[in-house]
Amino acid sequence: MAAESAASRIRVVLVAPRNPLNIGAAARAMSNFGVFDLRLVNAYDVAFREARSAVKAHDVLAKAREFPSVAEAVADCALVVGTTAIGHRVLEHPLRRLETAGRILRAKLSQSPVALLFGSEKFGLSNDDMSHCHWLTRIPTREAHGSMNLGQAVAVCLYEIIRSPAAVRQPIESRAAATAADVERFTAMLEEVLTASGYVHDRVEGSTERKLRRLVRRMQLNAHDAQVWLGMLRQIRWKLLS
Amino acid sequence: MAAESAASRIRVVLVAPRNPLNIGAAARAMSNFGVFDLRLVNAYDVAFREARSAVKAHDVLAKAREFPSVAEAVADCALVVGTTAIGHRVLEHPLRRLETAGRILRAKLSQSPVALLFGSEKFGLSNDDMSHCHWLTRIPTREAHGSMNLGQAVAVCLYEIIRSPAAVRQPIESRAAATAADVERFTAMLEEVLTASGYVHDRVEGSTERKLRRLVRRMQLNAHDAQVWLGMLRQIRWKLLS
Repeated sequence: MAAESAASRIRVVLVAPRNPLNIGAAARAMSNFGVFDLRLVNAYDVAFREARSAVKAHDVLAKAREFPSVAEAVADCALVVGTTAIGHRVLEHPLRRLETAGRILRAKLSQSPVALLFGSEKFGLSNDDMSHCHWLTRIPTREAHGSMNLGQAVAVCLYEIIRSPAAVRQPIESRAAATAADVERFTAMLEEVLTASGYVHDRVEGSTERKLRRLVRRMQLNAHDAQVWLGMLRQIRWKLLS
Repeated sequence: MAAESAASRIRVVLVAPRNPLNIGAAARAMSNFGVFDLRLVNAYDVAFREARSAVKAHDVLAKAREFPSVAEAVADCALVVGTTAIGHRVLEHPLRRLETAGRILRAKLSQSPVALLFGSEKFGLSNDDMSHCHWLTRIPTREAHGSMNLGQAVAVCLYEIIRSPAAVRQPIESRAAATAADVERFTAMLEEVLTASGYVHDRVEGSTERKLRRLVRRMQLNAHDAQVWLGMLRQIRWKLLS
């Protein structure tokens, strides 16, 4: 599948991460989205050792590699994209919103390895780190609180890359819809019950009938529920007429 | 702005959360995306008290409300959507991938409050919790590791709702591109330098000239970089000819 090979070309590079919980959280998000190439640059040693014990992300952490510099960590990548919350620093790089970045990254990943850089929890990427990037991306957070938790930022970025624009138009996974015949049977029985209960008059007018028909269609019954409703109405009718 | 009022209509409902770090993380993600209505159902008391001290999400946590039941937590909502990692349980509800859910939620949020339910870290939403939902959504994680960290799941869901399909087509925020005149000046100077250096012959052929022209255009120079390059080439030419 194209999506799988694209995921295998993503390198997540954490530059100078300090908190083992965050390294573990990033690894877990990667595992969730089928991304397994984690690279650490200048990780605080203790943090990395502690993170290795993180549950549910063992496969990612076991294969994680350490690099002495950003240049070495991204050496095999055809595109290097840095993440930033911007803040008030003037950026020397082109900056793309994550939605736009996702489209470009998906296209690039169909052929080449791509690195996504995340800076340290406290300071983000340095200007020096950024100079290794072709461009930067930002998650569209609000200005007053732009900086995201590291693990969450990794999760959101990978989701954007992995998300399928095609899925938006996919049919809904759901039970089979009720057939028109069952819906009509339900409508007719509802009409009988309403008549028997005195809610509508003995001779139902065409306009009332059409109103009921539309009302029932708006329920968008599935096949199973239509049977349940029919059973309930049948019982109510029996009680009303007995 | 439409996006702002939509965000104000989102209620994030955490059902039976156990870990204060997760409540704090969910609150932080909400704050990042401008969502401030956090509701807790059967939260472990200690967890909620500890979460209140979470940094960077004070505004969300201070306003968080506790409810004794899911029904009460979602009472004001026109649409209630549960999140699930599916697992192997047979679901009684229609299930939509998050991409599809996002589209529907955005449309609904333009008019009505919507609740997004997240279950406990360990068990997810119970069948009883789910019975309050109109439908369910799942983040497209891989089957072998579907279950996400709670704070990350909240972040990804809110990002999907807040993300702007329009932004994908937005022009790239970047420096102004170099003018054709500057690009041509650069090309001509590169040609001079290559000739002076002996890289190309004295009389440059048309085909070589066209190759150079295409090479330079592929650099997609911005206005500033074009000046820098011209300065460098000018210096190199001076050195070569002196």
